Amino acid sequence: MEGCIVCGIVSGSLSAYVIHEDKDIVCFLDVNPISAGHVLVCPKAHVSGFSDLPDALVSKIFCFGKRIASAIERAPTIDGVSILQNNGSFNELGHFHLHVFPRQRGDGFSWKRSDAPFGAYGGLAEVQRTLVQALREV
Amino acid sequence: MEGCIVCGIVSGSLSAYVIHEDKDIVCFLDVNPISAGHVLVCPKAHVSGFSDLPDALVSKIFCFGKRIASAIERAPTIDGVSILQNNGSFNELGHFHLHVFPRQRGDGFSWKRSDAPFGAYGGLAEVQRTLVQALREV
Repeated sequence: MEGCIVCGIVSGSLSAYVIHEDKDIVCFLDVNPISAGHVLVCPKAHVSGFSDLPDALVSKIFCFGKRIASAIERAPTIDGVSILQNNGSFNELGHFHLHVFPRQRGDGFSWKRSDAPFGAYGGLAEVQRTLVQALREV
Repeated sequence: MEGCIVCGIVSGSLSAYVIHEDKDIVCFLDVNPISAGHVLVCPKAHVSGFSDLPDALVSKIFCFGKRIASAIERAPTIDGVSILQNNGSFNELGHFHLHVFPRQRGDGFSWKRSDAPFGAYGGLAEVQRTLVQALREV
């Protein structure tokens, strides 16, 4: 898609530190990494969100992501590997990308458990009912 | 495995807000959620890390995770869905679990790009060479 960084890398009009490419996916280094070895795994097709990916591509992307995690784990100095994938307002590229990155203790990667997560929901039992119902419809 | 919370949920000795269960996986609500709808997707078998999962289970877990993301996206009030999975020192349960959770702007989920990510590595080109080599060996 015009103006898409990932599509530009796929077409060759933008350069990247590619570590793997095949007919379905391209994997390259994040140039502004959380840590050395931070890789983005992307479908070549311009698909935006996780829920838009066909199952075959989900399998391909995450099985290769696993292989990248194994490769990263060969580094002796890391404390772990995390994977992260953001959608909606948090998809910074507008093209599906799975982050796979080495972790170090104190790396600043963090999240906050909400003190009052339920908002309009009464609690966990109501969330459970809502999700079980929604799963029947997707 | 004895003492494992996820194995306790699988065996029925611990209760949970389960939203899906089949022969391979169990999906239940995180009781200390980032946001309402925060789900953990786990293999029933006691597998610790992402790189330990067989490909068939990777496909199963992430394809079902996608379905959960679709179900969560039916809520009108969220700004997106993220997925996260931590390994090594950052695997708090010792049993593989994929986090799937709704996002709200300002939800406190954050990470820091490193100011000096490369440490002993010279830079992106050296990381690229290292990972390409490691991928040949995994």
